[in-house]
Amino acid sequence: MAQSPALLFLLLFIFATKTIESTQIFFPRATHQSLIKQAKDPKLSIPYKTQFFPQLLDHFTFQPQSSKIFYQKYLINDHYWEHGAPIFVYTGNEGNIEWFAENTGFMLDIAPKFRALLVFIEHRFYGESLPFGKDSYKSAKTLGYLNSQQALADFAVLIQSMKNLLSEVSPVLVFGGSYGGMLAAWFRLKYPHVALGALASSAPILQFDDITPWTSFYDAVTQDFKDASQNCYEVIKGSWAELQAVSEQKGLAELSRSFRSCENLHSMYSARNWLWTAFVYTAMVNYPTEANFMMPLPAYPVREMCKIIDGFPPRATKLSRVVAAASLYYNYSRTEKCFKIENATDAHGLHGWDWQACTEMVMPMTCSKDSMFPPSTFDYKAFSEQCMRKYGVLPRPHWITTEFGGNRIEQVLKRFGSNIIFSNGMQDPWSRGSVLKNISASIIALATEKGAHHVDFRSATKEDPDWLVEQRRQEVEIIQRWINEYHSDFK
Amino acid sequence: MAQSPALLFLLLFIFATKTIESTQIFFPRATHQSLIKQAKDPKLSIPYKTQFFPQLLDHFTFQPQSSKIFYQKYLINDHYWEHGAPIFVYTGNEGNIEWFAENTGFMLDIAPKFRALLVFIEHRFYGESLPFGKDSYKSAKTLGYLNSQQALADFAVLIQSMKNLLSEVSPVLVFGGSYGGMLAAWFRLKYPHVALGALASSAPILQFDDITPWTSFYDAVTQDFKDASQNCYEVIKGSWAELQAVSEQKGLAELSRSFRSCENLHSMYSARNWLWTAFVYTAMVNYPTEANFMMPLPAYPVREMCKIIDGFPPRATKLSRVVAAASLYYNYSRTEKCFKIENATDAHGLHGWDWQACTEMVMPMTCSKDSMFPPSTFDYKAFSEQCMRKYGVLPRPHWITTEFGGNRIEQVLKRFGSNIIFSNGMQDPWSRGSVLKNISASIIALATEKGAHHVDFRSATKEDPDWLVEQRRQEVEIIQRWINEYHSDFK
Repeated sequence: MAQSPALLFLLLFIFATKTIESTQIFFPRATHQSLIKQAKDPKLSIPYKTQFFPQLLDHFTFQPQSSKIFYQKYLINDHYWEHGAPIFVYTGNEGNIEWFAENTGFMLDIAPKFRALLVFIEHRFYGESLPFGKDSYKSAKTLGYLNSQQALADFAVLIQSMKNLLSEVSPVLVFGGSYGGMLAAWFRLKYPHVALGALASSAPILQFDDITPWTSFYDAVTQDFKDASQNCYEVIKGSWAELQAVSEQKGLAELSRSFRSCENLHSMYSARNWLWTAFVYTAMVNYPTEANFMMPLPAYPVREMCKIIDGFPPRATKLSRVVAAASLYYNYSRTEKCFKIENATDAHGLHGWDWQACTEMVMPMTCSKDSMFPPSTFDYKAFSEQCMRKYGVLPRPHWITTEFGGNRIEQVLKRFGSNIIFSNGMQDPWSRGSVLKNISASIIALATEKGAHHVDFRSATKEDPDWLVEQRRQEVEIIQRWINEYHSDFK
Repeated sequence: MAQSPALLFLLLFIFATKTIESTQIFFPRATHQSLIKQAKDPKLSIPYKTQFFPQLLDHFTFQPQSSKIFYQKYLINDHYWEHGAPIFVYTGNEGNIEWFAENTGFMLDIAPKFRALLVFIEHRFYGESLPFGKDSYKSAKTLGYLNSQQALADFAVLIQSMKNLLSEVSPVLVFGGSYGGMLAAWFRLKYPHVALGALASSAPILQFDDITPWTSFYDAVTQDFKDASQNCYEVIKGSWAELQAVSEQKGLAELSRSFRSCENLHSMYSARNWLWTAFVYTAMVNYPTEANFMMPLPAYPVREMCKIIDGFPPRATKLSRVVAAASLYYNYSRTEKCFKIENATDAHGLHGWDWQACTEMVMPMTCSKDSMFPPSTFDYKAFSEQCMRKYGVLPRPHWITTEFGGNRIEQVLKRFGSNIIFSNGMQDPWSRGSVLKNISASIIALATEKGAHHVDFRSATKEDPDWLVEQRRQEVEIIQRWINEYHSDFK
């Protein structure tokens, strides 16, 4: 089984179990040393006020105990806003909301033009929006309330309350990236009376069931590296066997040394996951400019990684090359003396995704034989057993497509719904599970060949290439059209 | 407070409480003697097979205890069906499903033309679809799972499963009357990937918040009687004071006698509710032909009631006239020796609506000074206190409009959604809370001046007036258009 059901930008956090060695199943643990540092800084580098909204724990049952309230965090900026002007809402995803606000400078960039109120709503069970405080992740009993339908209802209630209070007539536009983009698109579909339109960036709403081929994600990662250099692809593809051989012949101590691990590795799989993670995330954030979303990285980091791999002397081992390449991902800032490969910390509180992947967000993925990763299949039985062991629940693999659709989406939405932009960058492997063709006159796909994971949401910079400037220009133009229509419909 | 938050065709079953006399609040108890008899007959008079589907109790949380399954009843008829042909689904409402199947002969009538599979799905917590068996109504702990969102998810899961099993390519059309019509319309809006279109008959989706004037329901009842005869209206309007006077001056024993009550009345309000119920339901089922939905009744029963009222000798009291008129409703079949005014039984298991009205289905209603009913206001505080006392929960009065919309529906759906027919008959007071004007080319209102509560769903008869034949013809034509479009979109 491959890096299967995965968080939108972090891979599934089901830790290695006893079954690993025998069945070749493994799930990587995240390793984000640099993020930990960011989290230590409590100050926001972004101009938002923090607020909390009393939210119902359970919107869909009416039990006395479920009249339990929790406080949902949201960030707000009314600097540019005037009464009646649009409200731009970011539908938060699986992490603390400041992080998404920091990485969605686009909304701040366009706010003056629209005189928009900006709101970033934190997703329940992430960041500080913890319904059961530090016990929120204790068991299925608490985690049960962590899911996308409850999150969408949170957004609806909060936005509605805000509209009632501030401006009934303001059109609401929802923005979201990655899982947040899925939520934004679904929000427009389920709550058209609350949001006029959605900009869903890098939203793989079709990564469920067998709508998108299961190999497409890792094939896309592979393509990114192959496009950079054929040799690079071959080195990575060959490195997994070398890793296994070194581990078996020289042992974990030697492996720990060659990976510059801060502690002795407990398993070859930790090293493997560390490499795997670096390649996947680098493909996702293969941005055209220097950026720091997952990690600080140079412009076009895939190309830079491949330069490292290709630049080694001819006799260098594949393993030494890939370790060096992965080090670009983990240590571009050159501040790390060693790598925390075994005991990574989850700086952004992202581990809730593990629960979501074990319940509703079942996204099967496999690696084909031409992939740069070892071939793998998706073993649903083993996956669901792991979920059962970990949480005492079984996944509902077809629930998302029942609740939100996805199959034959072109036919279903051709004559239903409106005002959704699906923006994607084809460098991003998640693009393959998104909507890449226009569905109707107002359900629109904007895909760029060179873009990566919601690159359009990043703050504009002077180095931005023309295609990115143009993609953002089209987004603004379309949103403006929706707003004009909205006002003319009221006349 | 008037006959406020009301079930789609039965009034709210919150029984009289201590507050009644002081605040003029009252809620009628249903009195449906004749229905009890129908329920005693276990045989279906309709050609359906009964099936049960294992359904998740809670679709929106993932707790281990909520993996509880219950068995949802549905009726099915595949006599006319062939593979790939449409599936017509009735989205069940607040009663046993056989009752709705019996009163929705329209689907059976049109099935041959479409070669349609017919499915009637029972709503959770009604009929035999009781998640906790006979304990289902025990408390909020069990009743918490009784609500419209869970019901819609039930429909989605069952229909999806049926499509997977029988025919992936079949278009699904949902049909519903009254609250079932609200569910059908909402189902098309929330699950467009499951249902191609909806025929929502007499579905008052706008009876929430202050979208529809609170007086409109009782004003419409009043109008029906006024249209039949001005004198009839005046007699009914004046009868409430007479009722109070007789009760105060002659006592409950005399009142019991004049109402032919089987038992001694405990309160003047029981008699009042009995009258009130008869007038409201007769207006609702003011059908152009003899029918037996709520009760067996002649064609145009409002006119017949007014004939009784107008036909008394000049000196007859108003009270004696209205009692005689109400007796038409309760005893058209002339089988009742006395009336069970105090202890009516709930033959169709409709009392679950009381819970729904106390939680999500808050439909404020008042009587204006020109109403044929005593003027009244809607006292939300008293209402919510009653709900708290009865169930330990507070209503969420704005939840339905947050979840399903309704405010400014013309603007919201003008460019969103498709394929919904809102059919109404203007005799039906619920019509005022429905959609009475076309919203777009495919969100269509079909309203008839003389129609009553989902009369279009009744089996065709030779006595049907032209306007009814024409309404049904248009419905069939529109549904056929949706299906043609569906097939051409697949090519």
